[in-house]
Amino acid sequence: MNKHHVLKGTVAALVATAALAGASGMAYAADGKQAADLAVHGGAQRIENITIGNTQAKNVILFIGDGMGDSEITVARDYLHGANGTFDGLDRIGQPSAYGDTTVGTGQYTTFSLGAGIEDKNDPAVTPVTDSAASGSAWATGTKTYNNALDVDVYGTPQMNLTELAKAAGKATGNVTTSEIQDATPAAQMSHSTLRSCYGPQGKTDGSSNNAADQCEVAQLKENGGIGSISEQMLDTRADVTIGGGAKYLHQTVQGGEYAGMTVWDQAKAMGYETVEKDVDALNALQYDGKPVLALMADGNLQTQFAPSVATKKDPAKDENPIQCSTNPDWLGNKNANGNSASLADMTSKAIDLLEANPNGQSNGFFLQVEGASIDKQDHNANACGQIGETDDLDKAISAALDKVDLNETLIIVTADHAHTSQIVEEQPNYALSTVLESPVDGAKITVAYGTSPDQMYANDDAPKFDEVESSMSHTGTQLRIAASGPGAQRVNGLTDQTDNFYTIAKALGLASTADDYKNLSSGMDYAVNVKDGKVSLDVTGLNGDASFSYAVTDAATGQVVAQSADGDPVSGERVRTMQTTSVDLTDKVMEGKTYKVTVTGRQTGVALDKEIQIPAQTTSEVIPGKPTGGNAQAAGDAAASGTPLSTTGAAVAGVVALMAALVSTGLAIRMIKSRRSGSAEQR
Amino acid sequence: MNKHHVLKGTVAALVATAALAGASGMAYAADGKQAADLAVHGGAQRIENITIGNTQAKNVILFIGDGMGDSEITVARDYLHGANGTFDGLDRIGQPSAYGDTTVGTGQYTTFSLGAGIEDKNDPAVTPVTDSAASGSAWATGTKTYNNALDVDVYGTPQMNLTELAKAAGKATGNVTTSEIQDATPAAQMSHSTLRSCYGPQGKTDGSSNNAADQCEVAQLKENGGIGSISEQMLDTRADVTIGGGAKYLHQTVQGGEYAGMTVWDQAKAMGYETVEKDVDALNALQYDGKPVLALMADGNLQTQFAPSVATKKDPAKDENPIQCSTNPDWLGNKNANGNSASLADMTSKAIDLLEANPNGQSNGFFLQVEGASIDKQDHNANACGQIGETDDLDKAISAALDKVDLNETLIIVTADHAHTSQIVEEQPNYALSTVLESPVDGAKITVAYGTSPDQMYANDDAPKFDEVESSMSHTGTQLRIAASGPGAQRVNGLTDQTDNFYTIAKALGLASTADDYKNLSSGMDYAVNVKDGKVSLDVTGLNGDASFSYAVTDAATGQVVAQSADGDPVSGERVRTMQTTSVDLTDKVMEGKTYKVTVTGRQTGVALDKEIQIPAQTTSEVIPGKPTGGNAQAAGDAAASGTPLSTTGAAVAGVVALMAALVSTGLAIRMIKSRRSGSAEQR
Repeated sequence: MNKHHVLKGTVAALVATAALAGASGMAYAADGKQAADLAVHGGAQRIENITIGNTQAKNVILFIGDGMGDSEITVARDYLHGANGTFDGLDRIGQPSAYGDTTVGTGQYTTFSLGAGIEDKNDPAVTPVTDSAASGSAWATGTKTYNNALDVDVYGTPQMNLTELAKAAGKATGNVTTSEIQDATPAAQMSHSTLRSCYGPQGKTDGSSNNAADQCEVAQLKENGGIGSISEQMLDTRADVTIGGGAKYLHQTVQGGEYAGMTVWDQAKAMGYETVEKDVDALNALQYDGKPVLALMADGNLQTQFAPSVATKKDPAKDENPIQCSTNPDWLGNKNANGNSASLADMTSKAIDLLEANPNGQSNGFFLQVEGASIDKQDHNANACGQIGETDDLDKAISAALDKVDLNETLIIVTADHAHTSQIVEEQPNYALSTVLESPVDGAKITVAYGTSPDQMYANDDAPKFDEVESSMSHTGTQLRIAASGPGAQRVNGLTDQTDNFYTIAKALGLASTADDYKNLSSGMDYAVNVKDGKVSLDVTGLNGDASFSYAVTDAATGQVVAQSADGDPVSGERVRTMQTTSVDLTDKVMEGKTYKVTVTGRQTGVALDKEIQIPAQTTSEVIPGKPTGGNAQAAGDAAASGTPLSTTGAAVAGVVALMAALVSTGLAIRMIKSRRSGSAEQR
Repeated sequence: MNKHHVLKGTVAALVATAALAGASGMAYAADGKQAADLAVHGGAQRIENITIGNTQAKNVILFIGDGMGDSEITVARDYLHGANGTFDGLDRIGQPSAYGDTTVGTGQYTTFSLGAGIEDKNDPAVTPVTDSAASGSAWATGTKTYNNALDVDVYGTPQMNLTELAKAAGKATGNVTTSEIQDATPAAQMSHSTLRSCYGPQGKTDGSSNNAADQCEVAQLKENGGIGSISEQMLDTRADVTIGGGAKYLHQTVQGGEYAGMTVWDQAKAMGYETVEKDVDALNALQYDGKPVLALMADGNLQTQFAPSVATKKDPAKDENPIQCSTNPDWLGNKNANGNSASLADMTSKAIDLLEANPNGQSNGFFLQVEGASIDKQDHNANACGQIGETDDLDKAISAALDKVDLNETLIIVTADHAHTSQIVEEQPNYALSTVLESPVDGAKITVAYGTSPDQMYANDDAPKFDEVESSMSHTGTQLRIAASGPGAQRVNGLTDQTDNFYTIAKALGLASTADDYKNLSSGMDYAVNVKDGKVSLDVTGLNGDASFSYAVTDAATGQVVAQSADGDPVSGERVRTMQTTSVDLTDKVMEGKTYKVTVTGRQTGVALDKEIQIPAQTTSEVIPGKPTGGNAQAAGDAAASGTPLSTTGAAVAGVVALMAALVSTGLAIRMIKSRRSGSAEQR
């Protein structure tokens, strides 16, 4: 098929008619843009120019039911509350008047992506069915991308996400999920990865092996000068609260950068995280103590609330004996011996408590994403009870949030990332799998069908094949419900796109959302070279509109490059730690007392700065994360001339790039400062 | 399965939790009602008590895409306009601000019904998947019912519909569809039938045979003293504009009542209709001339815009050669030699023109329902191009309406009756049928899957089996998009039920909507006995809150019943012609000059009246429809005592019923007035 579309005969007339209608006073284009235009940041917005709903919220909580299309909502409501019943949380958001909420909105949004996978990188094609990565990226960054991509555009270029932008605005941030924390939806709030499978420095393993070369683009790996895996970037992003599953992946060993050789768990501790691993009591006991919280409650995805139901082929006996769902004893939402539990509602409540106790949260508000992840996962598995229980878990998390926040200052948005397979049908289908349920509330017989697997769904003996990955049911491309209550909620009315959700949240919180905004966020960039404990580091701050940067260190006397970042790929370079100090190890690269020309360039904004710096003698000054680094290395020479951010025009930036390209490594012999790795627990 | 539900073990605890949450200040009940409570008029409302959006509109246009779930909308948008594109009409309704529309709403609504078919009559069960009849009845009457029922409740009792109520309020009314006009969605605006298949007096035939006994409940047939078939009730309802298909069914012969022996087409002409049968030029030439319009443009359903696509089993060749849709030369939307056409947009425009030229429309406004019927029908057939073209046809009809009306005085609502099968999937499924399309706008490859048929979908040679009815795809139970623009539009925000749509429209138009309202509408009931051209008729007016009535005529001297209606079934009795005169033939039953006690009772409101009437000598006075009958037969005796409507309390009505039951037929010999059938074209 030709991706680059040419209008064909019979339908061209139809399109012409539509274009004509579109011209008769309508504000919206009848015909959608082509993939290349949609690939631009904000290019897929549907409500770019509306002003309604542009009010400020102190806090935003975004609830995502993964795979929670209108069908999944209805299946769960029919079963749990009866067809006439109401979800206490899910259905309250966006519901006018009856609760006294006056600022609400409900609507539909589109979710298409721009490629079926990394094979479409650099050559985008409109793709009607998104995966969780492209969709999560769409609302996290406002940029559409290809399936499997996280917070990079179709060319692999990192796009700033809401968590980074909220941090840049001084807000507290949180990320809660029932899936592995590295899974696409939570990962889209904390990492930029050309492949969603790039879970950790050893790929997608428990640390006993390394398949990173299969799971990651190799240029992204730290050992190759890249910005690192999802787990490592999670630590760089440093949300104030991160709760989910995927604990086992943090037992991988870091392969490059300043924490090479440590496990990711140990890196987290070294970076000052308060960590919890699979300990419900410890989660419940957490209080705000100034440290960011990283609590991973399971090795993989969290257990579901309900035990699985098994969808099977058509069988009249199922109509005679419709089933009801049973609880799963391993669900963390069950109370343990100490009366503690970790349902999504529990984790959401804890996150809100921690964010509200955080000084940034108190002063500036917070952004929190909460995902009910396994609606999708159990829909893939044709597990009706599984998806119903997870929808219930999400609903109760919304109720828990409603109990804690004031809708006059908090915007709550509830939506999904993509629709899914399950359908409530009249009778058992002949080929699709199905489960026949009986609602415990109104007694209705609910027949749920699953028929979209592209592979063999059952073996010759008619047993379902859900132990095999390839028999998974398919996402669907249906537009989704989006609902909101609180300041800014009206922006979700009508038809919007998933990328509009980025702007809805950014506008409500007053976050940066345009390329110019991002340049402004990076315009305060500065850096110093510090020497401490025998380690030399280039410490960069203020690049808050960039996800990564390049640097080059050149011997001022010889013009020889002694250290520089990799920059052959959009995901190579140094990962920016927003509102923190990002350090690059120059130990063994530079000599005490010698002067170097140092250039740092934000790789997305192009904001650049160069200075001449004389490396100081070893000091004991500490680099404090989140604060400007002052009083350390001083720029040599004329600071006014070289210590000011360059113009961010393309021409000026191009000049810097040309300058850097002109530098060549000449292998100049320098006196090395002895390298010693710092294992201290100082915060970075 | 036990319809009458008993809570079971493991889930009872869950339900209790939900009930507790529901009690903590929530206005909505977490748990839905049981079927018997939902069966009450208005019993399934979700927003009964909200006040937002309760503003008045002069006109309401309700657009129904039959089977147009969010999936069907997305399939059509993706193909016709690109994934980023916009429907000019469909997506504009409910869209805030960008078009300058300030009063808009979008939300979701639930569609469940109360029985899988007439087998559930009198024993309702919550049924997650509705058909078009129960759903059409839900918004037409505000009462949930069983599948296949039209504007009767689960006990078979007729429920007043929006067309009748709009007429009662002095408004003009219209009903436009691309299906057979007797099909469920249009039929719900003009008939009360315990079976949707009761198309005409000879059932569902072209008049060459009679299968009414199979297609109708026999008590409903005119020859058995019933209120008649859908086609006959269409004429009784007398919308000002009725446009659709199903012309062939009107060639059936009327089997009972005053038009027995005529074809339904001839009955329509006799009743003063301006009729058009399959003549596009005649439709286009229609101007308002005081007569109601009945234009049926095809023998069955109207042809679709696009030629059908054929969904097939998984085949890699389909991915290599995605198809585009081609036009159907037989579509009435194509211009004919005279430049005329009859797309849904054309028919909608004509209907609006006629309604706006109507004096009632000018003074009091209008209610118009427009259905794009074959989205559903082609979804049943796994015909992606068919459903896409029909969605386009509906979209353009909405645009045509937007070009004609002022949203400051007209409420436009766009929704569907139920969701359907088609799903946009990532890859061709292994068992379901699928069609792979290529959008002519953005080049996207759109894979549409159909997998819900409960029967054999393809023969052993893998050819699809869509010539066989039983291979039809299934409706689904997913909640639906509802969108509105204009006064009252905000009522569709959030989660509502299909029955709320009845109240939304009734409130906007100021229509009666409660049992008390209906009693008030019937409180002006009066009647007379008229003699003309040798025919004696009991002419009843003012029963505008009832769909049917009972009568009894008793010899005042002997107490012998000489004529009475059938009343053994809720759909027996005389069909009320709202805001017209409803006549019962008493020829051969009563004698000139003799005095009878006549009792008329509205069968739904119970409003009753009895009078003693002396049959006058033959006169030439005419009965004028829609006007009180004065100056004809006079009530004998004390008019103040017996000529006033009875109290409408249950006790008084029960008294009347008891009185009537006490009367017995004694076969008294009376002088018969010669019977002659009136074939004149006077309006009734």
